[in-house]
Amino acid sequence: MVNTENSPQTSPETYVNGVDYGTLSGRAVVVRVADGAELAVAEHLYTHAVLDRALPDGTPLPPDWALQVPSDYIDVLRIAVPEALARSGVRPEQVIGIGTDFTACTMLPVLADGTPLCELPEYTARPHAYVKLWRHHAAQAQADRITTLAAERREPWLKRYGGKISSEWEFAKGLQLLEEDPELYALADRWLEAADWIVWRLSGTYVRNACTAGYKGQYQDGTYPSREYLAALNPGFADFVTDKLEHPIGQLGARAGGLTAEAAAWTGLPEGIAVCVGNVDAHVTAPAATAVEPGRMVAIMGTSTCHVMSSDQWAEVPGMCGVVDGGILPGLWGYEAGQSGVGDIFGWFVRTGFPVAHAEEAAALGRDPHEHLTALAAEQAIGEHGLIALDWHSGNRSVLVDHDLSGVIVGLTLSTRPEDVYRALLEATAFGTRTIIEAFESSGVPVDELIIAGGLTKNALLMQIYADVTRRPLGVIDSAQGPALGAAMHAAVAAGAYADIRAAAQAMGKARAGVYLPDPERAAAYDRLYAEYRLLHDYFGRGTNDVMHRLRALRAEASASS
Amino acid sequence: MVNTENSPQTSPETYVNGVDYGTLSGRAVVVRVADGAELAVAEHLYTHAVLDRALPDGTPLPPDWALQVPSDYIDVLRIAVPEALARSGVRPEQVIGIGTDFTACTMLPVLADGTPLCELPEYTARPHAYVKLWRHHAAQAQADRITTLAAERREPWLKRYGGKISSEWEFAKGLQLLEEDPELYALADRWLEAADWIVWRLSGTYVRNACTAGYKGQYQDGTYPSREYLAALNPGFADFVTDKLEHPIGQLGARAGGLTAEAAAWTGLPEGIAVCVGNVDAHVTAPAATAVEPGRMVAIMGTSTCHVMSSDQWAEVPGMCGVVDGGILPGLWGYEAGQSGVGDIFGWFVRTGFPVAHAEEAAALGRDPHEHLTALAAEQAIGEHGLIALDWHSGNRSVLVDHDLSGVIVGLTLSTRPEDVYRALLEATAFGTRTIIEAFESSGVPVDELIIAGGLTKNALLMQIYADVTRRPLGVIDSAQGPALGAAMHAAVAAGAYADIRAAAQAMGKARAGVYLPDPERAAAYDRLYAEYRLLHDYFGRGTNDVMHRLRALRAEASASS
Repeated sequence: MVNTENSPQTSPETYVNGVDYGTLSGRAVVVRVADGAELAVAEHLYTHAVLDRALPDGTPLPPDWALQVPSDYIDVLRIAVPEALARSGVRPEQVIGIGTDFTACTMLPVLADGTPLCELPEYTARPHAYVKLWRHHAAQAQADRITTLAAERREPWLKRYGGKISSEWEFAKGLQLLEEDPELYALADRWLEAADWIVWRLSGTYVRNACTAGYKGQYQDGTYPSREYLAALNPGFADFVTDKLEHPIGQLGARAGGLTAEAAAWTGLPEGIAVCVGNVDAHVTAPAATAVEPGRMVAIMGTSTCHVMSSDQWAEVPGMCGVVDGGILPGLWGYEAGQSGVGDIFGWFVRTGFPVAHAEEAAALGRDPHEHLTALAAEQAIGEHGLIALDWHSGNRSVLVDHDLSGVIVGLTLSTRPEDVYRALLEATAFGTRTIIEAFESSGVPVDELIIAGGLTKNALLMQIYADVTRRPLGVIDSAQGPALGAAMHAAVAAGAYADIRAAAQAMGKARAGVYLPDPERAAAYDRLYAEYRLLHDYFGRGTNDVMHRLRALRAEASASS
Repeated sequence: MVNTENSPQTSPETYVNGVDYGTLSGRAVVVRVADGAELAVAEHLYTHAVLDRALPDGTPLPPDWALQVPSDYIDVLRIAVPEALARSGVRPEQVIGIGTDFTACTMLPVLADGTPLCELPEYTARPHAYVKLWRHHAAQAQADRITTLAAERREPWLKRYGGKISSEWEFAKGLQLLEEDPELYALADRWLEAADWIVWRLSGTYVRNACTAGYKGQYQDGTYPSREYLAALNPGFADFVTDKLEHPIGQLGARAGGLTAEAAAWTGLPEGIAVCVGNVDAHVTAPAATAVEPGRMVAIMGTSTCHVMSSDQWAEVPGMCGVVDGGILPGLWGYEAGQSGVGDIFGWFVRTGFPVAHAEEAAALGRDPHEHLTALAAEQAIGEHGLIALDWHSGNRSVLVDHDLSGVIVGLTLSTRPEDVYRALLEATAFGTRTIIEAFESSGVPVDELIIAGGLTKNALLMQIYADVTRRPLGVIDSAQGPALGAAMHAAVAAGAYADIRAAAQAMGKARAGVYLPDPERAAAYDRLYAEYRLLHDYFGRGTNDVMHRLRALRAEASASS
């Protein structure tokens, strides 16, 4: 995994560039190799953001779709990377490598040369030609079949994914492409992760990264699901692996290739510097948060939350996203779990439920809506709002693995205020995290500590709620750009500056431990609310009342007929 | 019941004044006796509206309290009545009577001369000295004991109230007064309905109206609950009926007395004209809506909905509010049912969930928030929003009779828009009405037709949803002031202009039949959503998951400790 072509370069004069591709923007950061100091950051918002109602030409999209436009990713290289470099004062020749991380599983169909199908003029009005963002949830039917058939056939890989294959992943989205737009499926030479596509654009080399291959591509112990299994799913899908997916695997932190002339021109970085193999935003953050030992769970909390943790113990954790040997750190089992909506839910609430009077009050106090709602919510005692919510507005990744679930609020009265609902939503996501931690622990994988990364760390109320609800000390990554820092650290390894990512983490990683500690009294109060959460969780999530699935089916029928 | 002191006065020159006391305002209307023509209306908003967070002096109120200030009621007589008269062009001497209707059960403690305890300077900071509005829901614990004990003792009157006594009614609120502020309980010479208090203020005579005595005061077959029963509830409550409640009953449409000099000065009406016995906003509306035959259910839809219907059949309808012999019309069983939150819920949503972008769009289109949300909601096919709501934000009156229940929304996603939730709330209230109709029909009391009165009739989408959900033709009262018109009609009877209220209804009542007809296809689509509603209704409302009660208890604890 370690590139040893060059001798370590840890002099203060060398830098690496990390680029973090998130859901709505890309962020570039310039990092000093010696100590991880972040000199400058620049962000570029994707022009097309998320396409979830219509394509750029107005073609409407069905419910649950979420697409992106790949040229937006290139714009990040052309705009944010040079901007960060300019702000940092670092000279281009001081930069020895570039690393990236991406949302996952975010997939696109391309031609043999890497051209996305949506960039071919004849397919701009075809939804299936675009990038399917991680939170594209319209392949649930396919995911259900993938899981059911695997269970029937006792496919050995199924237990590596907590017993359920997500609609977000490579096979479900690929099968949806085949079944809904077979022409585009046939035309696609490759079906690949955006994480690998961007590295291809940077280095001229397509390398499939070990992380997404394992977590999202069902690649376990050196093999993919069998041709027989795929043929049983759909005869046309039999050769999916060999035709569209299979490709040499690159290890995390390895050098994919040198920066191409074209990419050097986009970025203003020197041609030929190390381009690191692709990685995933969550996983790349673990070493940035110094979580290189078992029992330290990193929760990257942004629009969604991803939980990553390494352990020396293997276990089948029900509803986890996956366990991959060396999927985060070499030599340890890498575990992943997730909550598919967190900050997205708070954002949705502010967008749709923040009334004029509150907006005026917030403006007068110089607060943004989240700050204002948080300040008002912080005044309450636990349980004072009388509410309990289920945080499934974007479905449930762990531990139910069902993206056809939806959000619930119980306890509304005529006295319920926006800050009450907001706090209930904050709490619901903390209950979701606790549910995941309990699943790990009851499977024999201890979770001793949480380290939080991502944009939501700045909300102290939310952090304290998480500490109280989970009864765990909460550390906080000491960087506002955890994934980009992690990507930069991997670039330093790819450039040969460190022997491996553990060494890089020691020098460049940043976290403050025990920033928020659980309060026993508040934790006890939350135990009562959590009991209510679990009751509703199981009622709505485990089939006692399948109303959410029926409502979703009704919605699809109604949308189709209207 | 008919006052025959004067000969019928149906010449075009005579008028009556109807005053409708609602939750937030009082409305006075001037009505022509001959044909019910409404010449003018004036409204006065109560200065103190509803006290549900604090008393006027800032004394905080616990959750579920809802109080009012009686001087606000007098202001309606001093401001709205003369204003309506002035606008009408009618000369005072042409007015032959005044009738009132009130929210119920709205109760206040007074001295022997009718002075409200909250008007005594030493008690202005005592919550229990004020008027307890119908939607004061803090006596649920008392109501539960009242019901449980009555069931244990097989009290014969219990079945007249669908098997449950509401926390809104005279006994529950009275027992709360005794147990929480015994000093004021002892001080109160009478515990009476605001409906009767205002008539006392107008006529100088305290007459207890037959409607509230029957529906809210558990007065059945000429008696109240027994002294033994009351003593078993609480020894201090043994003499509640004889000490505080019992008083001669006045029949609906009867003359309580003549307008006093003081009230004549307030209103600008002639001293001595007929003041009609008190009545309830919902019940008084039935004849105004021409519902004088069995099977015609009148739904008065405002902040809450009250369903009233007369029938020649007696039945025990589970969860109805009450059945009273002649409680609406002489000679028929009067049935009442209700939904404790309807327009209040829509108002709450607009107040707390109408975001800035929507407000700006509405302003640009010249729509008020309700019009704007309704217009957006109307564009949807049934089920397209993917939501189901329970309309219990103000508890559930019929058929669960439990004001500790609360509202629910299921099916929220990141694509859910305010108009989606708004439509789901409109529909939830229609499902609530259907639940009530089904309770009547399955008890053998047919409901053939709905006639809608009240402020919500102006929302055509809502009306069509009710027709489709209930599969009933919907008539609409042809007056914007149904209760005030009904009060005026009763005044005409009290003044001797008509022999009885049926005759008055024939001449003065106004309704258009079959304005909204159910569409079979839409009705079938709603059957599917209604099935989901009933499933959640029973799960949350009948004890399978008592989460709402536990959340409410937690809320009370947290409020008490914070």
